Amino acid sequence: MVEALTGGTPPRVWSLLVTVFGDLAQDLGAEISGPTLTRLTDAIGIKPEAARVALHRLRKEGWIDTRRVGRHSAYRLTEWGRAQSAAASPRIYGREEAAKTACLIVPAPSAGADAPIANAVPLGQGLWLAAETPAGSTALACPLTVDADLPDWIGARVAPASLCDLATLTVRRLQACETLLNETSQLPALQAAVLRVLIVHGWRRVALRSPVLPDYMFPKAWDGAACRRLASDLLQILPRPSLDALDSTDLRRS
Amino acid sequence: MVEALTGGTPPRVWSLLVTVFGDLAQDLGAEISGPTLTRLTDAIGIKPEAARVALHRLRKEGWIDTRRVGRHSAYRLTEWGRAQSAAASPRIYGREEAAKTACLIVPAPSAGADAPIANAVPLGQGLWLAAETPAGSTALACPLTVDADLPDWIGARVAPASLCDLATLTVRRLQACETLLNETSQLPALQAAVLRVLIVHGWRRVALRSPVLPDYMFPKAWDGAACRRLASDLLQILPRPSLDALDSTDLRRS
Repeated sequence: MVEALTGGTPPRVWSLLVTVFGDLAQDLGAEISGPTLTRLTDAIGIKPEAARVALHRLRKEGWIDTRRVGRHSAYRLTEWGRAQSAAASPRIYGREEAAKTACLIVPAPSAGADAPIANAVPLGQGLWLAAETPAGSTALACPLTVDADLPDWIGARVAPASLCDLATLTVRRLQACETLLNETSQLPALQAAVLRVLIVHGWRRVALRSPVLPDYMFPKAWDGAACRRLASDLLQILPRPSLDALDSTDLRRS
Repeated sequence: MVEALTGGTPPRVWSLLVTVFGDLAQDLGAEISGPTLTRLTDAIGIKPEAARVALHRLRKEGWIDTRRVGRHSAYRLTEWGRAQSAAASPRIYGREEAAKTACLIVPAPSAGADAPIANAVPLGQGLWLAAETPAGSTALACPLTVDADLPDWIGARVAPASLCDLATLTVRRLQACETLLNETSQLPALQAAVLRVLIVHGWRRVALRSPVLPDYMFPKAWDGAACRRLASDLLQILPRPSLDALDSTDLRRS
């Protein structure tokens, strides 16, 4: 089932570990023990040396802290790392589209048309698509409703072909995982956690690259909305395991 | 009352004569006799020589035809001249705003953003404001409804200060004329025709320079809509006289 979600190629380790901590240990004080982390990355097909390098880098970058607990290390998100995870969580775990409204923003001629607008998609010519007008703006904001007859080139700006392809690949992997899960009875806590992390990770890559806009702004062939719903369904089937449960699985095996 | 409408400076003759023919002689076969034309232009304060030069130019440009009738000339619009007048008439005589809808048009990046769009206001950056999307367009058209919160710079593009000033001047003249008309009983046909022509001419200068957009797209201080309604009211008080009535006035005096 891991292979259904990775296609046989493990994800980049650094990024995957961000998902692991964000999903399993986002709560204040939550720690992942070294053995549990090793067994999670092992199960995903990540080499121990690659995991060590990535953990070292995450610590240097201020994402995680480490402490010794007996013979092992224990890892937790820093305050900054927790804040990063918390900021991304609504996009990753929300079942609803990222925004309900959209508008075209034309900055005032005097406002410096090239100044970037946060969370907005540049259309070129100094124009932007965004969910809402920036407050206090002198820009012209034209609402784009679900009834708007959007030309294809707008969709292509909202989600370029590379992002659409990633969404299509991801929905296929999630569908394959769903099929296999339906054929499976109870899963051990560690395997459930591995699948859960890979599901979150696959959808997260699509979600965080997608602009904050309603689904109707995306191209007709966009699979991102299907990804979001399917990821949400699968995460309900595979609820987040407690770190204690994962650690005790570890103890049984060691 | 002529002075109330002209401010003491007669309008440019060529342009005024286009209004005279368009208002009084737009029907197929309608002719204005030389004496009637002279008495109309006299009453407005136009010198006979200036009128002759303008009539010559209008003939050369294909607006009017002349024929001899006894001792005098008679003038009529050519087919082309009638078509020009007819095309402008809905804007000049309509009581309703020039359009009910507006949209912002963003041409497709491939479409050559600088190609002008008919009847549209250029916003710069290749963007346009227009009443409707051109049919079969690949442009993005964002509707701008009456509820849209339009920034001031949009209004300034729709009606620049010079046009706003002209509308304000015109509405004041029309108001002065209305006041005087309310104090007046019956007017001789020729004087009624003179006032009517000057009212049409004043409003025509504003109307034909204004973009074809709903009133809500114009600046808050825009007096053009008030001009349109007042011109329409005054033209009902001063119905178009028959050319026969004007010619017979002429006979009585000659």
